[in-house]
Amino acid sequence: MKKFEEKTTSSKKIFEGRVISVKVDEVILPNGNTSTRELVTHPGAVAIIPITNEGKIVLVEQYRKPLERSIIEIPAGKLEKGEKPEYTAIRELEEETGYGSKNFTFVQSFATSPGFADEVIHIYVARDLYRIENPAGLDEDEFVELLEVTLEEAEQMIREERIYDAKTVFAIMWMKNIL
Amino acid sequence: MKKFEEKTTSSKKIFEGRVISVKVDEVILPNGNTSTRELVTHPGAVAIIPITNEGKIVLVEQYRKPLERSIIEIPAGKLEKGEKPEYTAIRELEEETGYGSKNFTFVQSFATSPGFADEVIHIYVARDLYRIENPAGLDEDEFVELLEVTLEEAEQMIREERIYDAKTVFAIMWMKNIL
Repeated sequence: MKKFEEKTTSSKKIFEGRVISVKVDEVILPNGNTSTRELVTHPGAVAIIPITNEGKIVLVEQYRKPLERSIIEIPAGKLEKGEKPEYTAIRELEEETGYGSKNFTFVQSFATSPGFADEVIHIYVARDLYRIENPAGLDEDEFVELLEVTLEEAEQMIREERIYDAKTVFAIMWMKNIL
Repeated sequence: MKKFEEKTTSSKKIFEGRVISVKVDEVILPNGNTSTRELVTHPGAVAIIPITNEGKIVLVEQYRKPLERSIIEIPAGKLEKGEKPEYTAIRELEEETGYGSKNFTFVQSFATSPGFADEVIHIYVARDLYRIENPAGLDEDEFVELLEVTLEEAEQMIREERIYDAKTVFAIMWMKNIL
């Protein structure tokens, strides 16, 4: 797992934000030459595939500033410092959908953009959903709209590019395989 | 597609690199409050699912500095300025694998990390592969090792987290559906 390792000779901090930080590392390449790597550090995230008792999937529509449009995604959220992904999954499901579940199963982890970012997303499926009476709310800068759709409707949303992000496209393909 | 739009009131350039640039936008939220958004700009990328005449998939192992380890991925590369994704696909397949194909089909596009980055990756499948006699080489800071594996071997690599990135996990699941 260290094949073609790039050893860091220096690291320059560029930016430390609320969500991401950015640095530029100078590295020695496998052939002895030097190069630079631009690196985004991100806390990592958890996403949940919430499946209702009717076999529908719960999705959230939200505005994504980097794309300058709203897209429809599975519920997700950043890992808080020191937080276990299993707990983030429970918290985000409640905050974004008002649903609870005692039936979470790990599905898959993956790096979203390993060329420039260390973000890893952990995906869980949540079944046996129930409504939480007074659910914890969203962060103050979050605005989402809930949708519950069939697998066929979700596939149509992919074709229309209303579903357009890696984790949600993955989630719909995964559901197709298990249902 | 503009639901919950966040209007930009100011934009501050933080960093302009070789691959990414970073800015912080001040935005007005749907409720009238203000917030900031940390945004990474990336040229976008193309990835190819190369399927040999024996039904194997061609993969490349490379070191990914943000993860500080090497992972096994489908061939991919950044869009050059003004380059059509179809052309990037042909170029990257040749540079990374030495294979050519006259049979490319579009599979799927998705945003990898829509919370902080605008990167979109366009995925194609390439069939009817043939060896190019003197293929164009890799960029000078790229080092990759070629592998040709069966679908079952690729699934095992996912379980071992040697395959660990969004586009490749997607690609293997997509192959599973079509083969």
